[in-house]
Amino acid sequence: MIDIGIAEPSIEEKEEIIEKCRQLKEVFAKRAPKYDKEGSFPVENFEDLKEAGLLGIMIPKEFGGFGADFLTYTKALEQLAMGCSSTALTFNMHNIAVGSIAELKLEGIGGSRGKVMKEFRDWVYDQSINQKKVFASASSEPGIGAHFSKLKTTYQRVDEGFAINGVKSFVSMAGYADYYVVAAKSAESTSEVPAISYLVVEKENPGTRIEEIWDVLGMRATATNPVYFENCIVPKEALFLGSEGMALYKIAREPHWLVGGYIGVYLGISVATFQFLVEFLKKKKIPGTDTSMSEDPTIQYRMGELYSALESARGITYNAARLVKEKLGSQEANNAIHHAKYLVSELGPWLSSQAIRMCGASSLAKRLPLERYYRDSRCAGLMPATSDDCLSYLGKAAFGADLSKPSETYW
Amino acid sequence: MIDIGIAEPSIEEKEEIIEKCRQLKEVFAKRAPKYDKEGSFPVENFEDLKEAGLLGIMIPKEFGGFGADFLTYTKALEQLAMGCSSTALTFNMHNIAVGSIAELKLEGIGGSRGKVMKEFRDWVYDQSINQKKVFASASSEPGIGAHFSKLKTTYQRVDEGFAINGVKSFVSMAGYADYYVVAAKSAESTSEVPAISYLVVEKENPGTRIEEIWDVLGMRATATNPVYFENCIVPKEALFLGSEGMALYKIAREPHWLVGGYIGVYLGISVATFQFLVEFLKKKKIPGTDTSMSEDPTIQYRMGELYSALESARGITYNAARLVKEKLGSQEANNAIHHAKYLVSELGPWLSSQAIRMCGASSLAKRLPLERYYRDSRCAGLMPATSDDCLSYLGKAAFGADLSKPSETYW
Amino acid sequence: MIDIGIAEPSIEEKEEIIEKCRQLKEVFAKRAPKYDKEGSFPVENFEDLKEAGLLGIMIPKEFGGFGADFLTYTKALEQLAMGCSSTALTFNMHNIAVGSIAELKLEGIGGSRGKVMKEFRDWVYDQSINQKKVFASASSEPGIGAHFSKLKTTYQRVDEGFAINGVKSFVSMAGYADYYVVAAKSAESTSEVPAISYLVVEKENPGTRIEEIWDVLGMRATATNPVYFENCIVPKEALFLGSEGMALYKIAREPHWLVGGYIGVYLGISVATFQFLVEFLKKKKIPGTDTSMSEDPTIQYRMGELYSALESARGITYNAARLVKEKLGSQEANNAIHHAKYLVSELGPWLSSQAIRMCGASSLAKRLPLERYYRDSRCAGLMPATSDDCLSYLGKAAFGADLSKPSETYW
Amino acid sequence: MIDIGIAEPSIEEKEEIIEKCRQLKEVFAKRAPKYDKEGSFPVENFEDLKEAGLLGIMIPKEFGGFGADFLTYTKALEQLAMGCSSTALTFNMHNIAVGSIAELKLEGIGGSRGKVMKEFRDWVYDQSINQKKVFASASSEPGIGAHFSKLKTTYQRVDEGFAINGVKSFVSMAGYADYYVVAAKSAESTSEVPAISYLVVEKENPGTRIEEIWDVLGMRATATNPVYFENCIVPKEALFLGSEGMALYKIAREPHWLVGGYIGVYLGISVATFQFLVEFLKKKKIPGTDTSMSEDPTIQYRMGELYSALESARGITYNAARLVKEKLGSQEANNAIHHAKYLVSELGPWLSSQAIRMCGASSLAKRLPLERYYRDSRCAGLMPATSDDCLSYLGKAAFGADLSKPSETYW
Repeated sequence: MIDIGIAEPSIEEKEEIIEKCRQLKEVFAKRAPKYDKEGSFPVENFEDLKEAGLLGIMIPKEFGGFGADFLTYTKALEQLAMGCSSTALTFNMHNIAVGSIAELKLEGIGGSRGKVMKEFRDWVYDQSINQKKVFASASSEPGIGAHFSKLKTTYQRVDEGFAINGVKSFVSMAGYADYYVVAAKSAESTSEVPAISYLVVEKENPGTRIEEIWDVLGMRATATNPVYFENCIVPKEALFLGSEGMALYKIAREPHWLVGGYIGVYLGISVATFQFLVEFLKKKKIPGTDTSMSEDPTIQYRMGELYSALESARGITYNAARLVKEKLGSQEANNAIHHAKYLVSELGPWLSSQAIRMCGASSLAKRLPLERYYRDSRCAGLMPATSDDCLSYLGKAAFGADLSKPSETYW
Repeated sequence: MIDIGIAEPSIEEKEEIIEKCRQLKEVFAKRAPKYDKEGSFPVENFEDLKEAGLLGIMIPKEFGGFGADFLTYTKALEQLAMGCSSTALTFNMHNIAVGSIAELKLEGIGGSRGKVMKEFRDWVYDQSINQKKVFASASSEPGIGAHFSKLKTTYQRVDEGFAINGVKSFVSMAGYADYYVVAAKSAESTSEVPAISYLVVEKENPGTRIEEIWDVLGMRATATNPVYFENCIVPKEALFLGSEGMALYKIAREPHWLVGGYIGVYLGISVATFQFLVEFLKKKKIPGTDTSMSEDPTIQYRMGELYSALESARGITYNAARLVKEKLGSQEANNAIHHAKYLVSELGPWLSSQAIRMCGASSLAKRLPLERYYRDSRCAGLMPATSDDCLSYLGKAAFGADLSKPSETYW
Repeated sequence: MIDIGIAEPSIEEKEEIIEKCRQLKEVFAKRAPKYDKEGSFPVENFEDLKEAGLLGIMIPKEFGGFGADFLTYTKALEQLAMGCSSTALTFNMHNIAVGSIAELKLEGIGGSRGKVMKEFRDWVYDQSINQKKVFASASSEPGIGAHFSKLKTTYQRVDEGFAINGVKSFVSMAGYADYYVVAAKSAESTSEVPAISYLVVEKENPGTRIEEIWDVLGMRATATNPVYFENCIVPKEALFLGSEGMALYKIAREPHWLVGGYIGVYLGISVATFQFLVEFLKKKKIPGTDTSMSEDPTIQYRMGELYSALESARGITYNAARLVKEKLGSQEANNAIHHAKYLVSELGPWLSSQAIRMCGASSLAKRLPLERYYRDSRCAGLMPATSDDCLSYLGKAAFGADLSKPSETYW
Repeated sequence: MIDIGIAEPSIEEKEEIIEKCRQLKEVFAKRAPKYDKEGSFPVENFEDLKEAGLLGIMIPKEFGGFGADFLTYTKALEQLAMGCSSTALTFNMHNIAVGSIAELKLEGIGGSRGKVMKEFRDWVYDQSINQKKVFASASSEPGIGAHFSKLKTTYQRVDEGFAINGVKSFVSMAGYADYYVVAAKSAESTSEVPAISYLVVEKENPGTRIEEIWDVLGMRATATNPVYFENCIVPKEALFLGSEGMALYKIAREPHWLVGGYIGVYLGISVATFQFLVEFLKKKKIPGTDTSMSEDPTIQYRMGELYSALESARGITYNAARLVKEKLGSQEANNAIHHAKYLVSELGPWLSSQAIRMCGASSLAKRLPLERYYRDSRCAGLMPATSDDCLSYLGKAAFGADLSKPSETYW
């Protein structure tokens, strides 16, 4: 079990965090159809998140944040996603940057290395909490996805700091976020396992260019666009935690940040789907009668199947989130994350498809959220680790492979 | 085997019909994104269908049509749906009216009854072939679906002919079609099995009113809206085939018209999905390599699963369509229709969901058709007979029930 | 959280209980083929269980037992079942009687009622721990299964105590167990919810007769035979806990005893199946090569699917067992039990079927345990609550039904 | 369409062949439990097959056989397997040898090559029809399965003819069949695609040795044992059709013989399973009532799912068998065979597992055939082409690979 700060929140404080998100859910749910229809970024929702102090959800209490552990965070995302999954997804992108720092125990690291790390951390915390700045993640690349070991984007030491060159696909919040956290390969590195580092780029950096092409099936309000980095110059301090070459190892050993946040988001969609289904069927009558569909034994039997699938995914997700805290970086925790990611990802399309089948044609209407759940949920399995990567990892682990080695994974 | 006319088309003529549709598919495919986005009716496509003489596809050759049998018709729909499934679906609605007449052997029916029927038939044929008029089907009702025995819409004898009162939900081509074929219950009937008849209503009839609310997940270009019939007066000649009370029996005994046309349409979507998937994966590279995804043994294995499911649905569909001709109205043919409807309906959402999973995030874009296939295909199982009704019918049939009795079905 | 005695075992003591069973597993595994082949009762295994003191596994420490909680018990059964599932299953039958008593807080019950209950409890504990006597459960009846509300077996007050009449199907350990715990309906009761009570019958009671017909697919060594009770006279003290009419309420409110024990048993079979599969594929070579099947990417991908299913069932099972202790009798705990029962029951046949498919024809041999796992695991879903009852309960619960009312369940 | 002889049987004659098998089914069904229990070869059933002239089922009418086409043959196997699947499976082994010859058009082949082939054919026909001799197939090898290109068994020219050395696993009818048809690799061949030929070995040949180890899950009465060929000398005439090196090409191009016969056999098991299920549920009452389970709407719904799966497999199987005749050796026919083999193989374990679940615990008894269907059906997917090979072939074919090249298959 890791020590995430002297002041871990109490059970009541954890419940308060989730309750904050539960309240935002109601507000977000009303706005979701508009953002979905337009494919526009949910700026109002982010104003609310900032207002509620949630940009600091992962920042330890002694630094002014809420100090959520991974389970509380997962449940918070679940609530937000029930209202607007695009908001929850992009909010998670911010927390990937912040949360991965919050997990580190920097106090024990001395010397100039420790100093640089702490300064970087303090800057990120200040930006998040006081300046209300939002961090975006820029990792995936065309034809490569999130396979870090294959990245083509490079950074090179120059007088002013570093020059970044490359193109990132699928950068959520492109145009809204204040900073991009860019994964790039050292142009000088010659090692077999490539030296992948993160660099922070300001939104206004003249070396960046967004291509606005996001018009897709689901998760339409995430503004997930390609960003070009063309001789993009950043200062030395832009190097994430002042450390080079750690990104690939970190992902292989602790995949919960890159992988884990999606789980809470997509679980939330399925929970919302199931709740919708329950209420819809309770109101719907068996054709030609006054009896609720919820009284039909065949409907009950099938609801049992859906309930079983949903509760399996939920139980496994919560357990995985607990293990992230209790056994950070262990094979057990990592397997649990991949297991949960796979389950939740493939649950959604099936569950929402079955829900439409059970509700009938009137449930297809845009004025109801079910059709959006159907569209949004299909995106889960495409995000890292994809459903197929998860299965391969789990299968390898079953045969005893050590997945903390980057060579064993597809990263 | 029924005699569908002295001049059944030759194998070459059948192939010509399908080929005509194959060519239209290419044209329709280009227009599909626009109609889907706007949710507007594909007027241009219907101009092409009229131009190609396809409003008479089911009309026997000796009456100037193409005389397609049900298998040829199914394959024709499959082609059209590969281009634009909304067009294929609404085109099927026209053929439900026309095709069910074309199947009848009226020559043997004498007397005034035979005369009335032949006059009605000739009028429909003339409207379809010479006047290029389109017939729409108005059967489903709010809270009832297509369960004919529960219909609330009534018709009543009045001096001018009949007065129709009621509301029909899900009338495809509402506002475009020239005629509505309305299923209604005789207001005078007191029998246990209600007397359901069809009446033809002109689009411009002042007793009709369309509510334009169709804004939905998929099949967006079908203009499927509620139509209100408020003291809607039609002449005596509007009675379909001049016959009262036959609708419910006909559906139970020969469900292929109400049920069967959907199968070709939705099969077409799945065929298009699979073709897209094959081409996409051939072009896509395994991340970080120059090798096509199609060379990946795991991908091949999974494609085998998808191929198997698609070919099962296709094989069962063609067989069912063949049986409709060879054993019209038999339990064997009807089971086959319900079997095919179920298989094809539930294939589509799964197949397109798997295809997105295999293609990855770049396949979500609106400029590619895959996301539309995912949305459109989910509508299949909601159309009559729904997937759940099909399973119940098949299960009852397995236990020996006689489904030609309306009391055994959910119609 | 209930108080199961002042001296709950420590974490180390719990692990010791499980370790005891792990060691027995090895011994049982060697004997399993013989008992399976003959369909004979595993007498030697029960000698070992007695020797290890495990007849008192559920009895509180202060009464001389091991005081296992439900999670520890579940893990103990899992281990035993990995060696011999027939032994684990019948061992569970004994613990249904003992464990349901151990859960009660009798200290607070005063008067003569409390005295009778405590005397009964002490007698059961003494029989189990000191006299090494085994209790069997006689609940199911022909054509009724374990649906308690439909039971036909009756008991009637007579001078000597009670007279029991009826036939019980599927009495495991028939002929081996020292006592039958018989569920029977009061012959005098006229209430709508029938008064079902348990009575303890000695094996040698002349009013009992066993019909030895157990020759079945799987779980062959459980000696599960019909037992006839024909004017079977038992003393007043034979009334379970001295209480009448509580059985049906107890099952509906706390189904973990009747339902829950099966989960650990059948989970054990699936864990053993998966372990077998891992080792088999590691040793097997890809045909014509020296490379292990475990290196094949498609095999890894599919192992991921199996691992995911197994770990879902395991995670949900452990969570359910935990809830039984933390929230005894709550809807949450009961739903979790039914969820776990369903998952584990339907996992086994699928997992073992896939394992045979992946291992190939050489895995069919009787000298390997896989084919036995395939046979034994199919029995799970037939035991109460059946897979289908579980789904119905879960579906009803999803719609908000209160399943603690016997009228809502199929008991 | 190939010409399988001037005197193709009439529709009535085909039906007579199937009817013969339907009658034998009844007889076989009564004997099946004994053979299954003992694991002994069904000698009586083969006496009946011989008596009925069925050893010549594939032999053209002008040569004295029944001249069955592949569809008729498939339906014949289906009937036999409904009675005793071990008998049907081993009967198919005989027909692999005979039927592959019957398909050839030898009349057009002149010269000494044609003469040798015709002599071999005539000998096989005479042995089958007049001498009532049975041929067994010896193809699979330990660690290799039926992957012909990896075979280790060799044959070498010697003075007396050929010397065969190697070991064959899974030789059905070992000890009963009169001849083994052994697939072996030329010891002299150095080509990349190995020269695989068939040689016929008499049962009594002193160079053969059977190891009697067959004690397995299912298909217990097939006497499928390893046979060792140790310097086993056969005359020149033993070379199958007098041709060398054709086996691998033949399998890749026309897999229906090695693959296709299994389909009819395993389809028969599933048909029998479904019929059993229908009858069982009709008789079984809903617990505590007098209403048949067949009246339960949830049961009907689920029966619909099972019916759908069974009829899909049946429809695809019959279509594949038809294509074997109409388009022998085409990719379409071969895909259809692999598709059908996969569907039928994986249908059986699922269908029988569901059937047990629906019938309940009383259906597990050995005196009922259901538990045997469950065991026997699991063997299908392990026989060539395995379920996994089928999926890989279908996937490759979907991407356009030419599977008539041995290099593209796993043979």
